[in-house]
Amino acid sequence: MKLLRVGAAGQERPAVLDTRGRLLDLSDLVAEIDGAFLSGDGIDVVRAAVERGELPAVEREVRIGAPLARPGKIVCVGLNYSDHAAETGAELPAEPILFMKAPNTMVGPNDQVLIPRGSVKTDWEVELAVVIGRTARYLASDAEAFACVAGYAISNDLSEREFQLERGGQWDKGKSCETFNPLGPWLVTADEVPDPQQLGLRLSVNGTRRQDGNTKNMIFGVAEIIRYVSQFMVLEPGDVINTGTPAGVALGLPEPKPYLRAGDVIEVEIDGLGTQRQTVVDAS
Amino acid sequence: MKLLRVGAAGQERPAVLDTRGRLLDLSDLVAEIDGAFLSGDGIDVVRAAVERGELPAVEREVRIGAPLARPGKIVCVGLNYSDHAAETGAELPAEPILFMKAPNTMVGPNDQVLIPRGSVKTDWEVELAVVIGRTARYLASDAEAFACVAGYAISNDLSEREFQLERGGQWDKGKSCETFNPLGPWLVTADEVPDPQQLGLRLSVNGTRRQDGNTKNMIFGVAEIIRYVSQFMVLEPGDVINTGTPAGVALGLPEPKPYLRAGDVIEVEIDGLGTQRQTVVDAS
Repeated sequence: MKLLRVGAAGQERPAVLDTRGRLLDLSDLVAEIDGAFLSGDGIDVVRAAVERGELPAVEREVRIGAPLARPGKIVCVGLNYSDHAAETGAELPAEPILFMKAPNTMVGPNDQVLIPRGSVKTDWEVELAVVIGRTARYLASDAEAFACVAGYAISNDLSEREFQLERGGQWDKGKSCETFNPLGPWLVTADEVPDPQQLGLRLSVNGTRRQDGNTKNMIFGVAEIIRYVSQFMVLEPGDVINTGTPAGVALGLPEPKPYLRAGDVIEVEIDGLGTQRQTVVDAS
Repeated sequence: MKLLRVGAAGQERPAVLDTRGRLLDLSDLVAEIDGAFLSGDGIDVVRAAVERGELPAVEREVRIGAPLARPGKIVCVGLNYSDHAAETGAELPAEPILFMKAPNTMVGPNDQVLIPRGSVKTDWEVELAVVIGRTARYLASDAEAFACVAGYAISNDLSEREFQLERGGQWDKGKSCETFNPLGPWLVTADEVPDPQQLGLRLSVNGTRRQDGNTKNMIFGVAEIIRYVSQFMVLEPGDVINTGTPAGVALGLPEPKPYLRAGDVIEVEIDGLGTQRQTVVDAS
């Protein structure tokens, strides 16, 4: 199933895209697409309602929000594709590199992306996002890890490279700027993604293809990441993991590096997970 | 005012400690001590109710939870006391080092602290926590920064040093383990802390004083930290900033470093903000 949240920012209501491409309103059925929904019987309830054919349609032209209420945390994996590690001049990590992104960076898939004040190195990163559906704590196997996945979505893990790398210390400083995590359009339930390690993921800026990777080239796969993270922190339903980006970010391109500027248009897609389109503007 | 949350974990209810030391129940007055409470007129409503003298008492022997509902984020400042930077062998930072801690690490001030499975370097860090009461975005002055402070609390910013420093990459990996952020007992409103840069802060383990610092020795003060963080991310009501720890952590002591072990008792205090007492146990 493809779950969505539609409506004005901060007033989104739950919706579902059915197999015939109709956008159906879930407001009368479920309160929110969040951890409680994902860890309970929410997905089954929605599936049954779709099959009964009784859900009202959503009006056209509605804004699409992030397909998930604000998560408890966003955990990110760094340098998880060998080609991306190479382009940044980094060694291949021996174990996953983890960092965090502030949950209030999450915006809709087609919302504006803001260049932070003072930024000259705002960069893109297409990533497969994993949405957690069950509490994950000290998991022992890939099977346990996959059992904790509610679904998948496209994430654009925007990054300010000067803030991240040249301002002292830890990456988080360049990862948590306002609007820096467009998510969606859909939360695609795990049953519709039979192999998360066989997904093409692509990103273009102003029509120029910049990233063209495949999740089969992850250094650490989805199940290994979840199992690994669960040794260091408790993942909860509704949490998000951004699993890393393939080669082709501005940081890795020759000088002058084409960092994002106001007016740029970013288009992002992952096989089976839909498309995103963001216009870049300066933060006021 | 000294705000608290009391009751079983996950079922805390709001309370207030009045000037005569009585613990009063706020359940009938306010839903929760969270961002909405702090950014609205919640503090004024409670103050008026206390003055009217009509609030019921809380039973004795009740558990004290964190004095704040789970925050949207916990932002931490690294190496913010010159003596602590020196003991870890680090240079003084030219600007604040920021990292993040998962919000679900927050527990009550006297709850058990869990040694993560496989950990041999779990460490303590007494810190002044700042609780945000107003949205902070691109702040320009110390006055604007202080206007965003709802209050202060004691934070024990527990850290697993091997996970943080020896497992590849970013500090977050050693900062977000289960129970790694005891907070409280009180959220002391800003009006009762006339100068947050004149607070003694102390930590003992099994009766041995390990940290004995003063917030006057911060490299970057509270207002500067808030102003600085607001250039990189949007702080929201209910968010928490851990402002760094003074010297005396296990990492900085001679070998064999006295990292925490099951059975240890940690006692933490900050002038005017109360005391904490945690027993250390192994994560099961």
